[in-house]
Amino acid sequence: MSLSRLPEEEHPNKAFGWAARDTSGLLSPFIFSRRAPGEKDVAFKVLYCGMCHSDLHMAKNEWGNSIYPLVPGHEITGEVTEVGSKVQKFKIGDKVGVGYIIGSCQSCDNCTNNLENYCARGILTSSAKYYDGAITYGGYSDTMVANEHFIVRIPDNLPLDAAAPLLCAGITVYSPLRYYGLDKPGLHVGVVGLGGLGHMAVKFAKAMGAQVTVISSSSSKKKDALENLGADSFLVSRDEDQLQAAMGTFDGIIDTVSAQHPLMPLLGLLKTNGKLVLVGAPEKPLELPAFPLNSGRKLVGGSTIGGMKETQEMIDFAAKHNIKPDIEVIAMDYVNTAMDRLLKADVKYRFVIDIGNTLKPSS
Amino acid sequence: MSLSRLPEEEHPNKAFGWAARDTSGLLSPFIFSRRAPGEKDVAFKVLYCGMCHSDLHMAKNEWGNSIYPLVPGHEITGEVTEVGSKVQKFKIGDKVGVGYIIGSCQSCDNCTNNLENYCARGILTSSAKYYDGAITYGGYSDTMVANEHFIVRIPDNLPLDAAAPLLCAGITVYSPLRYYGLDKPGLHVGVVGLGGLGHMAVKFAKAMGAQVTVISSSSSKKKDALENLGADSFLVSRDEDQLQAAMGTFDGIIDTVSAQHPLMPLLGLLKTNGKLVLVGAPEKPLELPAFPLNSGRKLVGGSTIGGMKETQEMIDFAAKHNIKPDIEVIAMDYVNTAMDRLLKADVKYRFVIDIGNTLKPSS
Repeated sequence: MSLSRLPEEEHPNKAFGWAARDTSGLLSPFIFSRRAPGEKDVAFKVLYCGMCHSDLHMAKNEWGNSIYPLVPGHEITGEVTEVGSKVQKFKIGDKVGVGYIIGSCQSCDNCTNNLENYCARGILTSSAKYYDGAITYGGYSDTMVANEHFIVRIPDNLPLDAAAPLLCAGITVYSPLRYYGLDKPGLHVGVVGLGGLGHMAVKFAKAMGAQVTVISSSSSKKKDALENLGADSFLVSRDEDQLQAAMGTFDGIIDTVSAQHPLMPLLGLLKTNGKLVLVGAPEKPLELPAFPLNSGRKLVGGSTIGGMKETQEMIDFAAKHNIKPDIEVIAMDYVNTAMDRLLKADVKYRFVIDIGNTLKPSS
Repeated sequence: MSLSRLPEEEHPNKAFGWAARDTSGLLSPFIFSRRAPGEKDVAFKVLYCGMCHSDLHMAKNEWGNSIYPLVPGHEITGEVTEVGSKVQKFKIGDKVGVGYIIGSCQSCDNCTNNLENYCARGILTSSAKYYDGAITYGGYSDTMVANEHFIVRIPDNLPLDAAAPLLCAGITVYSPLRYYGLDKPGLHVGVVGLGGLGHMAVKFAKAMGAQVTVISSSSSKKKDALENLGADSFLVSRDEDQLQAAMGTFDGIIDTVSAQHPLMPLLGLLKTNGKLVLVGAPEKPLELPAFPLNSGRKLVGGSTIGGMKETQEMIDFAAKHNIKPDIEVIAMDYVNTAMDRLLKADVKYRFVIDIGNTLKPSS
């Protein structure tokens, strides 16, 4: 960010959103600006933006890298309003989205292998410094602009409100199901943690043909998992009998839990060659016993979002299989209440802000 | 073991070896017996037996499951003396070996997938209970008998003394190099810990076409690693400059260290999609930070020995590529001294007991 200019006058295009101003994380209306679309840029009117748990961390600077004022939001959908002269894939009126990243170097090994999400110079959609020095502002705002490479096309049969969370929660679980080979029909896949990520993991794994078991410390979500989300079975991990009966029966487990938790029972649940994939982000190191890894050739792996090609593939897969997150659509001025509820995991399973209809400059 | 009979009279065939009697781990001459070969059994005269570090743990009951008297040894080579009527693959005079396991159920998913090493009912070659109830005695002895399925053929051009350590140390590193896809020419493979396992990992990875870097906390083994073992480079992990320069450059790392050690610098050394494979057996859990796994789609996996088919493949690969462990051949009555030296890692890189020439009933 040019220090000599304020956010609202840095760029030619006026923008408006809600921003956190300090570590209270409280959001309030914020006037800023966005760059005029360059040759390869696509600008769009934001219609919906999902609320990811990381928005909460960032708003409160819990990861220590927040830049205030901070406009959160990286599950953004909307309609194209302007395209640069060299844009090839999009035209005005197209339904599009932007996810967790809005830029990458496009020349490193990761980028040339369609893994922009692992580019060391990747630019986050919110609270990062763009190549031109400007701070990135996320989707809790009226407009977006991005290089077309980082724009995803939303198929017509996918509603834009439901599509939004796919751009982070969806791809975060879809990508490891593919990469770790848990996408084969008939495999037994476990999902730990039934939140924004976990409920999408259930739906994607089911659509890929897996037998899906939700693993949870309590039975409170059992009915919802089985009857609403389509899981095949539910395992209460604190029930020693259930746990013992399920030992050695899983091909893979997608672990979405960000709190500290023991890996041992999960490793025990895996078959030989089983894979435990962490997509949550526990702050402190977890305890990893070597014995179950050795004795069953098991692995603990990680994954984060997905590359742009795979994100488009995921969106198309979701559209084809009619996979949609369960969402609660809220108004912009409900966002601080929603943040409080998010902190308590009081949402089934994703808040989506109706930006198009409820973000008003006067609000 | 039938409690009513002593080891020396339990079976018809007299046998002689050295056994530990208690947690001192001290070995001394021991008379016992082995079963007469059944229809599918192969009996052989033991000529050499490698000394694995786990022999030390077992002799002292450090893993809590030792059965005394305990005849260690699971890197066993020799010459066939008798075959059962239904043995198909071996004949008298053949050069053969036995490794870490001497039996498995042969009917579970693991066994039917050539992964007898992960069979839940696998029988260890030493200090386990065989299907007939007899205790298994390892290769620090004059004879062996095993079902032919667990017998490995030693190619003619592989000396029996050098072949012995391949049956545990060799397969323990060969198998994960294959399974985790670290066997492709041009990959950059790291080896942590330059002992019995590590020095074999260097040789196998080189033969598979990798660029191999030995990673060690000190430079004491640098000359040997580069000049004798054929490593391409040597990284002193306590040298922060060297460490930083190597960050993100490894496709995979074979970690042979059994002591507690931090995984963090090793995970940092990996590229995106990099694989850290633990083949050592640290007793206490290791600290696993989730962030480097997520941010680079890295994984920590385990592996233990290999199945019988792959063990034969490994032996044939070693013979073809002239891969032999660096060994120090010792006499049977040097074994207690060798155990002391093993404890201090004072061997380059494997002790092999010359059973054929030095195990005497009178010793």
